[in-house]
Amino acid sequence: MANSNQAGPTKTLYLDDLHVGQRFTSDTHLIDEEQIKAFAKQFDPQPFHLDAEAAKGTLFGGLVASGWNTAAIGGKRYAHRRRVIGAGGEISWPKPTRPGAVLRVESEIIELRPSRSRPDRGMATIRSETRNQLGEIVQVLAAKLVVPRRPSLITPSALPG
Amino acid sequence: MANSNQAGPTKTLYLDDLHVGQRFTSDTHLIDEEQIKAFAKQFDPQPFHLDAEAAKGTLFGGLVASGWNTAAIGGKRYAHRRRVIGAGGEISWPKPTRPGAVLRVESEIIELRPSRSRPDRGMATIRSETRNQLGEIVQVLAAKLVVPRRPSLITPSALPG
Repeated sequence: MANSNQAGPTKTLYLDDLHVGQRFTSDTHLIDEEQIKAFAKQFDPQPFHLDAEAAKGTLFGGLVASGWNTAAIGGKRYAHRRRVIGAGGEISWPKPTRPGAVLRVESEIIELRPSRSRPDRGMATIRSETRNQLGEIVQVLAAKLVVPRRPSLITPSALPG
Repeated sequence: MANSNQAGPTKTLYLDDLHVGQRFTSDTHLIDEEQIKAFAKQFDPQPFHLDAEAAKGTLFGGLVASGWNTAAIGGKRYAHRRRVIGAGGEISWPKPTRPGAVLRVESEIIELRPSRSRPDRGMATIRSETRNQLGEIVQVLAAKLVVPRRPSLITPSALPG
Protein backbone atom coordinates (compact mmCIF):
# COMPACT_ATOMS: atom_id res chain seq x y z
CA MET A 1 0.00 0.00 0.00
CA ALA A 2 1.52 3.24 -1.13
CA ASN A 3 1.30 5.99 1.42
CA SER A 4 1.99 9.62 0.70
CA ASN A 5 3.25 10.27 4.21
CA GLN A 6 6.28 8.07 3.60
CA ALA A 7 9.43 10.14 3.81
CA GLY A 8 11.46 10.53 0.66
CA PRO A 9 12.34 12.72 -2.27
CA THR A 10 10.14 13.53 -5.26
CA LYS A 11 9.32 10.37 -7.17
CA THR A 12 7.73 10.14 -10.57
CA LEU A 13 4.60 8.03 -10.55
CA TYR A 14 4.36 5.89 -13.70
CA LEU A 15 1.20 4.38 -15.13
CA ASP A 16 3.03 1.05 -15.41
CA ASP A 17 3.56 0.88 -11.65
CA LEU A 18 -0.14 1.29 -10.79
CA HIS A 19 -2.95 -1.24 -10.71
CA VAL A 20 -6.72 -1.01 -10.50
CA GLY A 21 -7.86 -1.44 -6.89
CA GLN A 22 -4.66 0.07 -5.52
CA ARG A 23 -5.33 2.25 -2.48
CA PHE A 24 -3.59 5.27 -1.01
CA THR A 25 -4.10 6.95 2.35
CA SER A 26 -2.85 10.48 2.93
CA ASP A 27 -1.48 11.89 6.12
CA THR A 28 -3.85 14.13 8.09
CA HIS A 29 -4.39 17.86 7.84
CA LEU A 30 -5.87 19.99 10.61
CA ILE A 31 -7.81 22.90 9.12
CA ASP A 32 -8.38 25.86 11.44
CA GLU A 33 -10.27 29.15 11.30
CA GLU A 34 -7.18 31.07 10.10
CA GLN A 35 -6.64 28.79 7.08
CA ILE A 36 -10.32 28.89 6.18
CA LYS A 37 -10.41 32.69 6.27
CA ALA A 38 -7.07 33.14 4.45
CA PHE A 39 -8.17 30.94 1.56
CA ALA A 40 -11.58 32.61 1.41
CA LYS A 41 -10.10 36.11 1.37
CA GLN A 42 -8.08 35.22 -1.70
CA PHE A 43 -10.42 32.94 -3.56
CA ASP A 44 -13.93 32.60 -2.18
CA PRO A 45 -14.91 35.66 -0.15
CA GLN A 46 -18.33 34.68 1.10
CA PRO A 47 -19.56 35.46 4.64
CA PHE A 48 -19.80 31.79 5.66
CA HIS A 49 -16.09 31.36 4.76
CA LEU A 50 -14.90 34.69 6.21
CA ASP A 51 -16.70 35.58 9.41
CA ALA A 52 -17.89 33.22 12.15
CA GLU A 53 -20.49 35.74 13.38
CA ALA A 54 -21.95 36.49 9.96
CA ALA A 55 -21.91 32.76 9.14
CA LYS A 56 -24.42 32.08 11.93
CA GLY A 57 -27.14 33.69 9.84
CA THR A 58 -26.47 31.52 6.77
CA LEU A 59 -27.62 28.03 5.78
CA PHE A 60 -24.44 26.63 7.39
CA GLY A 61 -25.06 28.16 10.84
CA GLY A 62 -21.32 28.77 11.29
CA LEU A 63 -17.97 29.15 9.58
CA VAL A 64 -17.15 26.49 6.95
CA ALA A 65 -14.27 26.01 4.53
CA SER A 66 -14.64 26.74 0.83
CA GLY A 67 -15.02 23.52 -1.14
CA TRP A 68 -12.06 24.61 -3.29
CA ASN A 69 -10.03 24.85 -0.09
CA THR A 70 -10.85 21.22 0.75
CA ALA A 71 -10.04 20.25 -2.84
CA ALA A 72 -6.69 22.04 -2.76
CA ILE A 73 -5.75 20.43 0.57
CA GLY A 74 -6.63 17.00 -0.81
CA GLY A 75 -4.63 17.63 -3.97
CA LYS A 76 -1.61 18.78 -2.02
CA ARG A 77 -1.64 15.63 0.13
CA TYR A 78 -0.84 13.67 -3.03
CA ALA A 79 0.62 15.87 -5.69
CA HIS A 80 3.65 17.31 -3.95
CA ARG A 81 5.92 14.32 -4.47
CA ARG A 82 4.37 13.01 -7.67
CA ARG A 83 4.05 14.24 -11.23
CA VAL A 84 0.40 13.89 -12.02
CA ILE A 85 -1.72 16.23 -14.08
CA GLY A 86 -5.42 16.62 -13.39
CA ALA A 87 -7.48 16.52 -16.58
CA GLY A 88 -10.77 16.93 -14.75
CA GLY A 89 -13.19 15.09 -12.53
CA GLU A 90 -16.38 15.03 -10.58
CA ILE A 91 -16.48 16.60 -7.14
CA SER A 92 -19.07 16.82 -4.40
CA TRP A 93 -19.18 18.09 -0.84
CA PRO A 94 -21.74 16.01 1.07
CA LYS A 95 -20.99 17.78 4.36
CA PRO A 96 -19.31 21.08 5.23
CA THR A 97 -15.79 21.28 6.66
CA ARG A 98 -15.71 23.28 9.89
CA PRO A 99 -12.74 24.78 11.78
CA GLY A 100 -10.88 22.14 13.77
CA ALA A 101 -11.64 19.37 11.31
CA VAL A 102 -8.84 16.84 10.80
CA LEU A 103 -8.95 15.73 7.19
CA ARG A 104 -7.58 12.54 5.67
CA VAL A 105 -7.91 11.42 2.05
CA GLU A 106 -8.44 7.79 1.04
CA SER A 107 -8.07 7.02 -2.65
CA GLU A 108 -8.50 4.05 -4.92
CA ILE A 109 -7.50 3.58 -8.54
CA ILE A 110 -10.66 2.82 -10.52
CA GLU A 111 -9.35 2.71 -14.09
CA LEU A 112 -6.03 2.78 -15.96
CA ARG A 113 -5.90 3.41 -19.68
CA PRO A 114 -2.76 3.90 -21.80
CA SER A 115 -3.16 6.61 -24.44
CA ARG A 116 -3.44 5.28 -28.01
CA SER A 117 -2.19 8.41 -29.71
CA ARG A 118 0.54 9.37 -27.21
CA PRO A 119 2.57 6.38 -26.04
CA ASP A 120 4.40 8.39 -23.38
CA ARG A 121 1.30 8.78 -21.18
CA GLY A 122 -1.99 7.35 -20.02
CA MET A 123 -5.09 8.23 -17.99
CA ALA A 124 -5.76 7.09 -14.43
CA THR A 125 -9.16 7.54 -12.78
CA ILE A 126 -8.87 7.84 -9.01
CA ARG A 127 -11.75 8.06 -6.56
CA SER A 128 -10.88 9.93 -3.38
CA GLU A 129 -12.91 10.38 -0.24
CA THR A 130 -11.94 13.11 2.20
CA ARG A 131 -13.13 12.34 5.72
CA ASN A 132 -13.05 14.38 8.90
CA GLN A 133 -12.08 13.20 12.38
CA LEU A 134 -15.61 11.80 12.91
CA GLY A 135 -15.31 9.65 9.79
CA GLU A 136 -17.85 11.79 7.93
CA ILE A 137 -17.23 12.17 4.20
CA VAL A 138 -16.81 15.87 3.41
CA GLN A 139 -15.64 15.49 -0.19
CA VAL A 140 -15.79 12.89 -2.92
CA LEU A 141 -13.61 13.42 -5.97
CA ALA A 142 -13.40 11.15 -9.00
CA ALA A 143 -10.34 12.60 -10.72
CA LYS A 144 -8.95 11.86 -14.16
CA LEU A 145 -5.18 12.17 -14.08
CA VAL A 146 -2.66 12.18 -16.92
CA VAL A 147 0.22 9.97 -15.81
CA PRO A 148 3.51 9.38 -17.69
CA ARG A 149 4.56 5.90 -18.83
CA ARG A 150 7.87 4.42 -17.74
CA PRO A 151 10.27 5.43 -20.55
CA SER A 152 11.87 1.96 -20.84
CA LEU A 153 8.44 0.49 -21.58
CA ILE A 154 7.69 2.80 -24.53
CA THR A 155 8.50 0.56 -27.48
CA PRO A 156 9.12 1.89 -31.02
CA SER A 157 6.08 -0.06 -32.25
CA ALA A 158 3.95 1.95 -29.86
CA LEU A 159 5.03 5.21 -31.47
CA PRO A 160 2.73 6.82 -34.06
CA GLY A 161 3.89 5.71 -37.56
CA MET B 1 -28.54 39.64 -18.95
CA ALA B 2 -27.06 39.69 -15.47
CA ASN B 3 -23.44 40.61 -15.37
CA SER B 4 -21.21 40.16 -12.35
CA ASN B 5 -19.09 43.17 -13.23
CA GLN B 6 -21.97 45.51 -12.49
CA ALA B 7 -21.11 47.75 -9.58
CA GLY B 8 -23.13 47.35 -6.43
CA PRO B 9 -23.29 45.93 -2.94
CA THR B 10 -23.72 42.30 -1.97
CA LYS B 11 -27.01 40.98 -3.25
CA THR B 12 -28.64 37.70 -2.38
CA LEU B 13 -29.41 35.59 -5.41
CA TYR B 14 -32.77 33.82 -5.02
CA LEU B 15 -33.86 30.72 -6.89
CA ASP B 16 -37.13 32.46 -7.73
CA ASP B 17 -35.32 35.19 -9.68
CA LEU B 18 -33.50 32.77 -11.97
CA HIS B 19 -34.63 30.98 -15.12
CA VAL B 20 -33.26 28.13 -17.20
CA GLY B 21 -31.28 29.48 -20.14
CA GLN B 22 -30.25 32.61 -18.24
CA ARG B 23 -26.67 33.59 -19.01
CA PHE B 24 -23.98 35.41 -17.06
CA THR B 25 -20.65 36.78 -18.23
CA SER B 26 -17.92 37.59 -15.75
CA ASP B 27 -15.42 40.39 -15.97
CA THR B 28 -11.92 39.40 -17.04
CA HIS B 29 -8.99 38.28 -14.92
CA LEU B 30 -5.36 38.47 -16.02
CA ILE B 31 -3.36 35.62 -14.50
CA ASP B 32 0.39 36.13 -14.34
CA GLU B 33 3.42 34.09 -13.33
CA GLU B 34 3.38 35.50 -9.78
CA GLN B 35 -0.22 34.43 -9.12
CA ILE B 36 0.38 30.98 -10.59
CA LYS B 37 3.44 30.41 -8.38
CA ALA B 38 1.85 31.86 -5.23
CA PHE B 39 -1.17 29.57 -5.52
CA ALA B 40 1.01 26.57 -6.33
CA LYS B 41 3.31 27.19 -3.38
CA GLN B 42 0.33 27.05 -1.03
CA PHE B 43 -1.81 24.41 -2.64
CA ASP B 44 -0.31 22.54 -5.60
CA PRO B 45 3.49 22.55 -5.45
CA GLN B 46 4.37 20.78 -8.66
CA PRO B 47 7.30 21.87 -10.89
CA PHE B 48 5.06 22.84 -13.83
CA HIS B 49 3.18 25.25 -11.51
CA LEU B 50 6.23 26.56 -9.64
CA ASP B 51 9.23 26.98 -11.91
CA ALA B 52 9.25 28.06 -15.58
CA GLU B 53 12.63 26.40 -16.21
CA ALA B 54 11.73 23.07 -14.60
CA ALA B 55 8.34 23.16 -16.37
CA LYS B 56 10.07 22.98 -19.77
CA GLY B 57 10.95 19.35 -19.12
CA THR B 58 7.35 18.34 -18.31
CA LEU B 59 4.40 17.35 -20.49
CA PHE B 60 3.30 21.02 -20.51
CA GLY B 61 6.57 22.40 -21.89
CA GLY B 62 6.24 25.50 -19.70
CA LEU B 63 4.65 27.04 -16.62
CA VAL B 64 0.88 26.48 -16.28
CA ALA B 65 -1.66 27.33 -13.60
CA SER B 66 -3.04 24.69 -11.24
CA GLY B 67 -6.55 23.68 -12.28
CA TRP B 68 -7.73 24.53 -8.76
CA ASN B 69 -6.33 28.02 -9.31
CA THR B 70 -8.47 28.41 -12.44
CA ALA B 71 -11.45 27.02 -10.53
CA ALA B 72 -10.94 29.44 -7.63
CA ILE B 73 -10.63 32.42 -9.99
CA GLY B 74 -13.82 31.39 -11.77
CA GLY B 75 -15.64 30.95 -8.48
CA LYS B 76 -14.51 34.32 -7.22
CA ARG B 77 -15.76 36.05 -10.38
CA TYR B 78 -19.27 35.06 -9.33
CA ALA B 79 -19.46 34.27 -5.68
CA HIS B 80 -18.22 37.47 -4.09
CA ARG B 81 -21.48 39.37 -4.34
CA ARG B 82 -23.84 36.42 -4.18
CA ARG B 83 -24.76 33.84 -1.57
CA VAL B 84 -24.47 30.57 -3.35
CA ILE B 85 -23.19 27.30 -1.94
CA GLY B 86 -21.47 24.78 -4.16
CA ALA B 87 -22.73 21.25 -3.54
CA GLY B 88 -20.48 19.74 -6.17
CA GLY B 89 -19.99 19.47 -9.89
CA GLU B 90 -18.06 18.15 -12.82
CA ILE B 91 -14.89 19.93 -13.88
CA SER B 92 -12.45 19.53 -16.75
CA TRP B 93 -9.44 21.42 -18.06
CA PRO B 94 -9.28 20.86 -21.83
CA LYS B 95 -6.28 23.19 -22.22
CA PRO B 96 -3.70 24.54 -19.77
CA THR B 97 -3.76 28.14 -18.51
CA ARG B 98 -0.42 29.84 -19.10
CA PRO B 99 0.97 33.09 -17.61
CA GLY B 100 -0.51 36.15 -19.33
CA ALA B 101 -3.84 34.47 -20.02
CA VAL B 102 -6.88 36.73 -19.70
CA LEU B 103 -9.73 34.62 -18.38
CA ARG B 104 -13.45 35.24 -18.69
CA VAL B 105 -16.25 32.96 -17.48
CA GLU B 106 -19.48 32.48 -19.40
CA SER B 107 -22.24 30.63 -17.57
CA GLU B 108 -25.70 29.37 -18.32
CA ILE B 109 -28.38 28.04 -15.98
CA ILE B 110 -29.16 24.47 -17.05
CA GLU B 111 -31.60 23.35 -14.37
CA LEU B 112 -33.53 24.79 -11.41
CA ARG B 113 -35.12 22.55 -8.83
CA PRO B 114 -36.82 23.64 -5.58
CA SER B 115 -36.05 21.32 -2.67
CA ARG B 116 -38.98 19.13 -1.60
CA SER B 117 -37.82 18.59 1.95
CA ARG B 118 -36.46 22.10 2.63
CA PRO B 119 -38.73 24.85 1.31
CA ASP B 120 -36.21 27.59 2.03
CA ARG B 121 -33.81 26.45 -0.72
CA GLY B 122 -33.35 24.80 -4.09
CA MET B 123 -30.67 23.50 -6.43
CA ALA B 124 -29.39 25.31 -9.52
CA THR B 125 -27.17 23.58 -12.09
CA ILE B 126 -24.93 26.04 -13.88
CA ARG B 127 -22.56 25.23 -16.75
CA SER B 128 -19.58 27.58 -16.94
CA GLU B 129 -16.91 27.82 -19.59
CA THR B 130 -13.70 29.67 -18.78
CA ARG B 131 -12.01 30.98 -21.92
CA ASN B 132 -8.66 32.64 -22.45
CA GLN B 133 -7.94 35.70 -24.61
CA LEU B 134 -7.74 33.47 -27.73
CA GLY B 135 -11.24 32.14 -27.09
CA GLU B 136 -9.87 28.70 -26.14
CA ILE B 137 -11.82 26.87 -23.44
CA VAL B 138 -9.49 26.18 -20.51
CA GLN B 139 -12.12 24.96 -18.03
CA VAL B 140 -15.63 23.58 -18.15
CA LEU B 141 -17.53 23.35 -14.88
CA ALA B 142 -21.05 22.02 -14.40
CA ALA B 143 -21.74 23.15 -10.86
CA LYS B 144 -24.61 22.27 -8.56
CA LEU B 145 -25.40 25.21 -6.32
CA VAL B 146 -27.67 25.46 -3.30
CA VAL B 147 -29.60 28.72 -3.67
CA PRO B 148 -32.03 30.21 -1.12
CA ARG B 149 -35.68 30.86 -1.99
CA ARG B 150 -37.16 34.31 -1.66
CA PRO B 151 -38.61 34.34 1.88
CA SER B 152 -41.91 35.94 0.83
CA LEU B 153 -42.52 33.01 -1.54
CA ILE B 154 -42.14 30.30 1.11
CA THR B 155 -45.77 29.47 1.87
CA PRO B 156 -46.87 27.64 5.03
CA SER B 157 -48.22 24.78 2.87
CA ALA B 158 -44.67 24.26 1.57
CA LEU B 159 -43.38 23.70 5.09
CA PRO B 160 -42.89 20.13 6.28
CA GLY B 161 -46.02 19.06 8.19
